[in-house]
Formats: sequence, structure tokens, C-alpha cells
Amino acid sequence: MPIITLLTDFGLTDSYVAEMKGAILGICADATLVDISHGIAPQQVGQAAFVLSQAVAAFPKDTVHVAVVDPTVGTARRAVAVATRHARFVAPDNGLLQPALDRLGAYEAVALENRAFWLCDQPSVTFHGRDIFAPVAAHLASGAPFEALGPRIDTLQPLPHAALAGQSSNEFRGQVIHIDRFGNLITNIPAAWLAHETRWAVDAGGAVALVQRTYADAAHDHLVALPGSHGYIELAVNGGHAAHRLGLDVGAPVIIRPQHP
Amino acid sequence: MPIITLLTDFGLTDSYVAEMKGAILGICADATLVDISHGIAPQQVGQAAFVLSQAVAAFPKDTVHVAVVDPTVGTARRAVAVATRHARFVAPDNGLLQPALDRLGAYEAVALENRAFWLCDQPSVTFHGRDIFAPVAAHLASGAPFEALGPRIDTLQPLPHAALAGQSSNEFRGQVIHIDRFGNLITNIPAAWLAHETRWAVDAGGAVALVQRTYADAAHDHLVALPGSHGYIELAVNGGHAAHRLGLDVGAPVIIRPQHP
Amino acid sequence: MPIITLLTDFGLTDSYVAEMKGAILGICADATLVDISHGIAPQQVGQAAFVLSQAVAAFPKDTVHVAVVDPTVGTARRAVAVATRHARFVAPDNGLLQPALDRLGAYEAVALENRAFWLCDQPSVTFHGRDIFAPVAAHLASGAPFEALGPRIDTLQPLPHAALAGQSSNEFRGQVIHIDRFGNLITNIPAAWLAHETRWAVDAGGAVALVQRTYADAAHDHLVALPGSHGYIELAVNGGHAAHRLGLDVGAPVIIRPQHP
Repeated sequence: MPIITLLTDFGLTDSYVAEMKGAILGICADATLVDISHGIAPQQVGQAAFVLSQAVAAFPKDTVHVAVVDPTVGTARRAVAVATRHARFVAPDNGLLQPALDRLGAYEAVALENRAFWLCDQPSVTFHGRDIFAPVAAHLASGAPFEALGPRIDTLQPLPHAALAGQSSNEFRGQVIHIDRFGNLITNIPAAWLAHETRWAVDAGGAVALVQRTYADAAHDHLVALPGSHGYIELAVNGGHAAHRLGLDVGAPVIIRPQHP
Repeated sequence: MPIITLLTDFGLTDSYVAEMKGAILGICADATLVDISHGIAPQQVGQAAFVLSQAVAAFPKDTVHVAVVDPTVGTARRAVAVATRHARFVAPDNGLLQPALDRLGAYEAVALENRAFWLCDQPSVTFHGRDIFAPVAAHLASGAPFEALGPRIDTLQPLPHAALAGQSSNEFRGQVIHIDRFGNLITNIPAAWLAHETRWAVDAGGAVALVQRTYADAAHDHLVALPGSHGYIELAVNGGHAAHRLGLDVGAPVIIRPQHP
Repeated sequence: MPIITLLTDFGLTDSYVAEMKGAILGICADATLVDISHGIAPQQVGQAAFVLSQAVAAFPKDTVHVAVVDPTVGTARRAVAVATRHARFVAPDNGLLQPALDRLGAYEAVALENRAFWLCDQPSVTFHGRDIFAPVAAHLASGAPFEALGPRIDTLQPLPHAALAGQSSNEFRGQVIHIDRFGNLITNIPAAWLAHETRWAVDAGGAVALVQRTYADAAHDHLVALPGSHGYIELAVNGGHAAHRLGLDVGAPVIIRPQHP
């Protein structure tokens, strides 16, 4: 039974996710559908990219992942399918797949131009999730040849600048890309960037925390920064909810600087 | 594999939805279960009716939709099954199915009086979702004959007055029937009612917005009304969250009047 | 097709639940996955135990329930599998299963020490849900012999003291173990403990309500306590949201005393 996962910013109250699933089941009746998340903050491609990259390794080989966070739906942005040795993806070409592909290695990509694999010849302008991405994923999972979906393309769009951390002199700039269930703010700044011999301070919205090793390195109810289990620097309140405490949301800028003694 | 969808106002924190699914799988072990939404505001039959009507067309023929938003559970209100050429439904007879049936055309209906298709002879007073609607849907999906579920009925209850828009002289009165993920307020007033040659103003809780064609017809962060993709007039804030801005919830009254120059 | 349910405090925004499902499907490809709840308040074992105990009876015989609310993950607490005549469970040994097992009768238990059934020899310290509990559940559902999972154990840990109601003289002390969709506060104090001939008053955070028989025994918008459909005393506001009104959350202490005339 083929596995198809779904990742969107559609939420679970509207009918959108269900419409995508209906479209899939009309093409691939025996698909096993798994939600990765529909709680991505609206149009936050960076957050979606992070959550997808966390999830892909746990799924069996040949799983098809449909990811739709698509702020430029209806413009000329391409829709793509991407295949690696481990997994297949269907998504807008807006950088959403980049962190997952960085983990999975070599890939091939095609532009979704063959309308035979769409739900209909004239898709809606606003809902490519149901009309293009879901049906293409279902056809892929049903055995449609990858090359038939459209012309091969050599390069994918990168994640938008703001969703990628950067470095200038000895300072790292990034943003909050995810807030987990416990209110921890996960940034897009890799922990591996921070030299061990330096003491680092994280500035998020004016609040400053030293980078430590564990939550317990801060006093109860105090802010702490630390390398998270996913490999990025995160901000937490020991025993509390950092996002509420700092009043920050996905997209908030973060700066890490050496802490001068 | 038969498909059964679920739509309720039960939320996803309590065990209620899982209990319905357990009851279904005990009868129809190979059902593919799809959630349409469990985030309907408590007892808002109009919102449930809207979301269901949006979703049904996307599902394959013969899907069974179980919809349980049931403020009068335990009273003499009927439980019904309804069959159209495209889909089948199991729901309380409270108008919840009306907009979906309006889209799907001719139907037949039966009252769910044959207890052989219930979970047990003596269902709970408060949880017909698990004890009547879910098992009947599972039996239908497993091939039970429609006519066996109970006596045929000729007419279904309409949506309660408050959940249907109305017209008096040149003024349209309705309500907010849904708030989508992005905070847009969707009303139950069909865009087709508004004559093109007139300029219209929407009054929602005292806030007034002109009916335009797109979000971008309002300045950034300003209120706008427009025909939504679903065919109803909706209220949005360009780049913002209209529901938070206006402090309105599902059920809030809305009036559309000609805008006098 | 084997059924596996999942109950966690992981929420639906992060990738954790999807990672558990990916791990399951890699081992038991034809599993039917059903979410019981992922909205358990973080680390509230008592709430998880309540919700699980409500759900289990509705599922077919031999369903495997994976429940992961695990505040002491990474410590020496045991991981266990438990089998009753009706159902099987995989969970941390922290009392989470106690109310469900109280309903289901005799059981056998093993400690999950056989790493052949784990995802890998060296599981992560923080995510046993994906690395131990999910794979063991998948192997069980696929037919692995229960005794092979690890050594038999005779006793399970009880629910932590605070999550069990108690009695001293003629006073009952418990806590809020669940807040349902409608804002009703469900306590862990069994309604059967309260002698019918006595009038009882419930004190929750200083707010006091008499125990009545139905919601309608209180005036509209007034606080009322009553025996809930699940057998426990609950607090509600007739036509309102008791949790918001009282500002109370899961874990809040509750005392029931005779009402002196």
C-alpha cells in the first residue's frame, strides 16, 4: 500500500485538507494517508521546510510527500516533483524542499506541466493543492513514471533569503522557524556554526540568553538557549513557554553574537 | 476500500472522534477514514453545513459522509441517511445536509429506525455519534441495503432560519458561517445575489466594508468584502486577520445594503 | 488489517506524531492508524490516562494502543507492553494505563527490553515514542509474540498520587483531569463516591458549586457540578465555558465537601 503524507498551512478546521485527500483517493484508492502537519503558520515556507526535513527520514522508502505552503500560488512559480533514492516529493518550487533534500542527497526534478496528471485541465487559481499537487502525488504513488509528469529541470529555487540563516563577520543572523508544542522557539541557525571555545549570546526581540548545554543550565522559569535535538539553536524557558514569554512568533529575527566578558 | 468521512464539532482533544472510528472499524474493518473537520464551533449547524458542502465534490463516488453536529441529541429529532447519485450521508435531520444536497441534486432519504444497524439496542442519550451514526455509516459502507436502515421519508428539515440568509426589500441579512485559517469571515450570503451594477456595503458588527473584487482592492491592513472562491461574500483584512480585528465569531449577524453615494 | 491507535501530548503542529506513524508503517505496512488524541496537556499523565480509558472500549478486539505521555523519558522508568483479553497497550510504566486496565480486567505485562523490536539499537534519549513505543506496537500488530518483547513483570506503577482522587474523613480531594471541547472541567472524583442522601459542594480554585443532576439545574450562565456521562464529577457553566470562567487548567485541585445547611 503506497504511503502519501501531507504537509500544509491549511489548518484542520476548513475543508481544504479533506478535499486534497478526496482527490488522492479518487486516483489511488489504496493509499495510506498520513498528516505530517497542517499547523504551519500561514505562508511560512521556512517553517514548513523545517518540519518536513524533520519527518522524512522516519518514513519508508518510496513514500510520496505532498507539501503545500504556497504564498505565490497563481503566479508563474513552478510546481515540481522531486525524487531521491529514499523519498519522492510534490510541492511548489519555492525552497520548501531544500532542507529535506539536503538530508537525503542526490535528486532528480521535473516541472509538473503534463496536465494529464492534474485533476482537470483548468485548475482553480487558488487551490493547486487539490487540483495539481494531490492528484500528481496520487498518480506517482500509483506507479505513474516520474519522467511523464513533465520536463526535467536542473535547479530548484532556494529557500527565500529570510528563511536561511546567514553569517557576517562573527555574528549569525537567522529567524524563528518553528515553535514546538512546549513553546520552545527553534531557530534556523545550525548549532554546528557556533565554535565551542566561544561563549555565545542569543538576541531574540531584545531578550538575550546565553547558549548553554541543557534546559537545566538556566534557573527555573528563566530563559535559556541551547542546541536542540534537531541540530539548531533553540530558545526555551526552563519549566515555561518561551513563545508566550517573549511574545514572539514564527519569522521573528534572531541574532547570535559572541558574549564579551 | 470504502471511504467514510467524519465531520463533527467534537474537537480533537477528547476521545469522542476516536470512539466513532473504533465503532466504524469494528463493523467495516477495511474502511478508509478521512476527517473533514472536527473544529466546527460547538453546535453551529450552519458552519458544519457549509464545510460539508465544500468538501463533498472532491470525494469519489459512493463515499459515505458521517456528519454529527447535533444540538438536539436526545430529543425527538430524527436521525437520517440520505443517498444521492454521487454520495451517501448519515446525520441528524437538522438541516446540516441541505447545502451539500443542494449541490448534488436528487436524493432519497430514510429515518434510522432499524436498531439492527445501531451499535446496540439501547444507545446512550448523549452520544449518538458513536452509537447510531458511526455504525450505520459503517454498515452502509459495507454494503447494507439503504432501504433496510428504516422507513423512507419525503422531506428533510431545512437549515434553521438563522443559518440561512434572507432578503427584505433591497437588503440582505445573513451571518458569519465560517472563519477560515486566515481569519477570513465567510458569510452565508451568496455573491450571486448582489447585482453587479450596484455598489454594496457589508455591515458586520458595526464595521462596514465595500464589496470589491479582490483582497488587493483594499489598502494593506484594511477591511475588504469580496466574493469568495466558494461563492459566498466574505470579509477579510488585506494582510491581516479579520476575525481578530472585528472580534467576531461564527454566528455573528451580517447585513449587506446598497452603498448610497 | 491490524488497528493501532496513538495517544500523546505531542500536539499536531510538530513532526513527532508523523515520525511515529512513519516508524509504524515501516514495520506494519497494512496498519490502520487512528489518533485518539494528541492534545493532552504537556506531561499530564492523569489526563492521558482518563482519555485513553474512555476510548478503549470502542475499539475492536486486539487493537494495539500506543500511549506516550512520558515526563521521565530518559530516566530508568520502564517501558512496557500490556495485554488484556480485549486490547493491547504499549506505554511508559508511569500509571498511564491504570484506568484503562481497571476497566478491562486481568492483564499480563512485559518490560520492553528486547532491542530486536526497537527501531534501532541506540534509541534517542528524548524520543522513545518513535524509537521504542511505535516500533514495538507495530511488531505486536504484525504478530510478534507478546512474550518475546521482554521479561514478564508482575506489577505496574500506579498513577502518581496527585492524579488519583482520595478521601479523608468526609471530604474528597482530587483534581481536574480533563477539559472537554465545551470547557467542562472533568475531575477524577468518581460520582459513585458521593452518598445520595447528602448535599455536596465542589470547591475548585475558590469557586463553589452544588452537585446537581443536570446542567439545567443551574441558571443560565451559572456554575454547576454534576455526575458526567463518564462517571466522574464535572464542573460546567450552563451555556458557558467553565474553564475560561474559572481560569483553571488540567491539574487544578478540587475538593468536595458536604454542604452544611
